[in-house]
Amino acid sequence: MTAGGICGSDLHEYVAGPHTIPDQEPHPVTGDRLPITMGHEFSGVVEDAGPGVSMAAGTRVAVNPIVWCGECRYCTEGNYHRCTSGGFVGLSGGGGGFAEKAVVSVEKVVPLPADVSTRAAALAEPFSVGLHAVRQSRLELGDEVAVFGCGPIGLAVSQAARLAGATTVVAVEPRDARRERASECGATVTIDPEGVDPVEQLRETCDGGVDVAYEVAGVERTVTDAVRSTRKGGDVTIVSLFEDETALQLNDVVLGERTISGTLAYLGGPLSDREFGMTLEHVASGALDPESIVTDTVSLADVVDEGFERLLDATSDQVKILVRP
Amino acid sequence: MTAGGICGSDLHEYVAGPHTIPDQEPHPVTGDRLPITMGHEFSGVVEDAGPGVSMAAGTRVAVNPIVWCGECRYCTEGNYHRCTSGGFVGLSGGGGGFAEKAVVSVEKVVPLPADVSTRAAALAEPFSVGLHAVRQSRLELGDEVAVFGCGPIGLAVSQAARLAGATTVVAVEPRDARRERASECGATVTIDPEGVDPVEQLRETCDGGVDVAYEVAGVERTVTDAVRSTRKGGDVTIVSLFEDETALQLNDVVLGERTISGTLAYLGGPLSDREFGMTLEHVASGALDPESIVTDTVSLADVVDEGFERLLDATSDQVKILVRP
Repeated sequence: MTAGGICGSDLHEYVAGPHTIPDQEPHPVTGDRLPITMGHEFSGVVEDAGPGVSMAAGTRVAVNPIVWCGECRYCTEGNYHRCTSGGFVGLSGGGGGFAEKAVVSVEKVVPLPADVSTRAAALAEPFSVGLHAVRQSRLELGDEVAVFGCGPIGLAVSQAARLAGATTVVAVEPRDARRERASECGATVTIDPEGVDPVEQLRETCDGGVDVAYEVAGVERTVTDAVRSTRKGGDVTIVSLFEDETALQLNDVVLGERTISGTLAYLGGPLSDREFGMTLEHVASGALDPESIVTDTVSLADVVDEGFERLLDATSDQVKILVRP
Repeated sequence: MTAGGICGSDLHEYVAGPHTIPDQEPHPVTGDRLPITMGHEFSGVVEDAGPGVSMAAGTRVAVNPIVWCGECRYCTEGNYHRCTSGGFVGLSGGGGGFAEKAVVSVEKVVPLPADVSTRAAALAEPFSVGLHAVRQSRLELGDEVAVFGCGPIGLAVSQAARLAGATTVVAVEPRDARRERASECGATVTIDPEGVDPVEQLRETCDGGVDVAYEVAGVERTVTDAVRSTRKGGDVTIVSLFEDETALQLNDVVLGERTISGTLAYLGGPLSDREFGMTLEHVASGALDPESIVTDTVSLADVVDEGFERLLDATSDQVKILVRP
C-alpha cells in the first residue's frame, strides 16, 4: 500500500457500526467477519502475483474494492456493483487498505497511467463514485447543475459534472472551507444555505431551476431542496446514504415530471477497470484532480487520532485525509 | 358533447376542493374562476367553427383539455403540459365537458378515426394519461411490470404496458371488482394486498423484482411497496397525486440504483393530437379498450347523485361512469 483515503463510510462504521462490516455472520463472499482490516480507497505497488497471474512486480496500481459473487442476476448482467451478496474490500473483509500489504484478486487491480501519482490514485475510488454518479444521471452537455453537499464525494461529483460539460455548477454547502474548496473543484457559484433559501437563489440563477441536482449530504432538507431546485422534467441524483426515513412531498415529483435516481459506487467485477480506468485517464490529463480535495496526510499508526477523529470534528476544516504507511 | 367521463380529480374537487379550480384569483390563461363548468374527459361533434378555422360541422372529435400560456420556458420547449400557468378545460375554466356544448380552441380538438365510438373517445383523456406514463417510464419490450392501484388510470396504464410489450403485468389492488377488471385489462397476475406482503409475492413471481412499477394509488404504502417491488436498477413511475408527505427509506433507492419518476397528463398545446392521436389509433385497432373500464352511464342531470356520489362510495363496484347529455 502506498496511500489510502479515509472515507465517510469508514467514519460511519467507526462511530455507529458495524453496519456494512459483517459482525455475527461471515460475509457470504469473503467469508470474513469482525475483526477486519478497514480501508477501501487505496493504491499500491504489486509485490508478487499468484500462480497464472501475469502482473509484473513493481506495477503501480489502484484497487477497485468491489466484492461480487459472480452468480446472481446482477452479476450475470454485468452489474457486479449491484451484486446481492456484494460488498467492498476494507468493509466486508477480504483484506483492506489500512495495512502495509493486501492480497486481492487480479480483477480488482487497475494499473496506473504513468502520469498519475500513487497519492492521487488512492482517490480513484471516491472519484469513480463521482464519475459513476454523473454517468448514471441525465446530465447533458451544457446543462446547469446543483451539488448539495461538498464533502469528498460532492467535490468529486462537481469535477465530474464540469468534465461532462455542465456550464453552471452551483455548490450548496454550509461549511466555509468546503465552499472554498468547491470553487477550486469546478463550482461556478457557491451558496451558503444557512439562513437563506438556496432554492430561491438557484431558481433565480438558473431560469427557474437546474437541469440536474446531485444530493450528496444524506439529510431530509438537502433532498427536498434538491427536488425543488430542479426545473420541471429535471433530474435529482442521490449519491448519499440515509440514517432515517425522508419525508417527501411527491407532488413536486409528479406535477413537475421530475426524476429521483439513486447511484451506488461504480462498475466492478470483471469490469473493475471500466470506470476506474476512465477516472485514472482523466486524472492523468488533469481534468480530474483528486489532490485538490486532500487536506492532510497521516501515518498508519495515527489513522484513528489524527484521521478519523479530526474528520468527525464538525469544526475542523478537514475534507480528505490520506494515510501513508 | 356526446359523452364525458367522471375523473378522480373531479371527485377530489367535489369533496375537498377547490384545489385546481381557481377560487379567488382568475386563472392566468382562461381568466375564469368559480363557478366553472366541470368535466375534462369528453368527446363531441363539431357544431360550428370560428372564423378562419377549417373544421367541418359534424366532425366527431375528442377534446385535449390542456390549457397553456405559450410563452413560458416549458411551452417554448414543446412541453405545454408542464406550462407554469397551465391547467385543464373543465378544471381551470375555459368551458367544460359536463354541459351540452363547449367552445374550445382548435388546437385542443382531435378528430376521431372512423372506428372509434364517441363513447370510447370520451376516455381518450385518461387513456392518454396511461399512454404518456408508459412512454415516460423506462419500460422496454419484454419487461415485467407491476401496477399498484386499479382505478381508471391504473387500468389504462395496464393496457398501455401490455401494448408496449410487457410480458408480465402484476396488478395489486384491494377491491375485488377492480382486480377482476384488471384481468380484463392486460394484467397477467393480480394480488390482493390485504393481509399479505405483495412485495414478497412479486419478488417470487419476477426473479427478485419487476423492471417497472407504476404507482397509481397516491398513498405511502403503495409508494413504498412499488419501490421495494422493483429489481435493482428498476424504475418506479408515479402517476398519482398525494394529500400528504410520503416517508421514504431512500437507501432503497440508492443501494438499488432505482429511479422514481413522476408523470403528469400528456402532451398538449400545438402537440395536443400527438399522444391523443396515438391513443385513438390504438383504440381503433382494439389494442386499447376504454369501454372495458366503463361500469355505468348516467344523464347530465344525474351527474352528482348517480355519478360523483356512487364513485365516492368505497363499497361500490363502480370504476368509470360516463355522462351523456
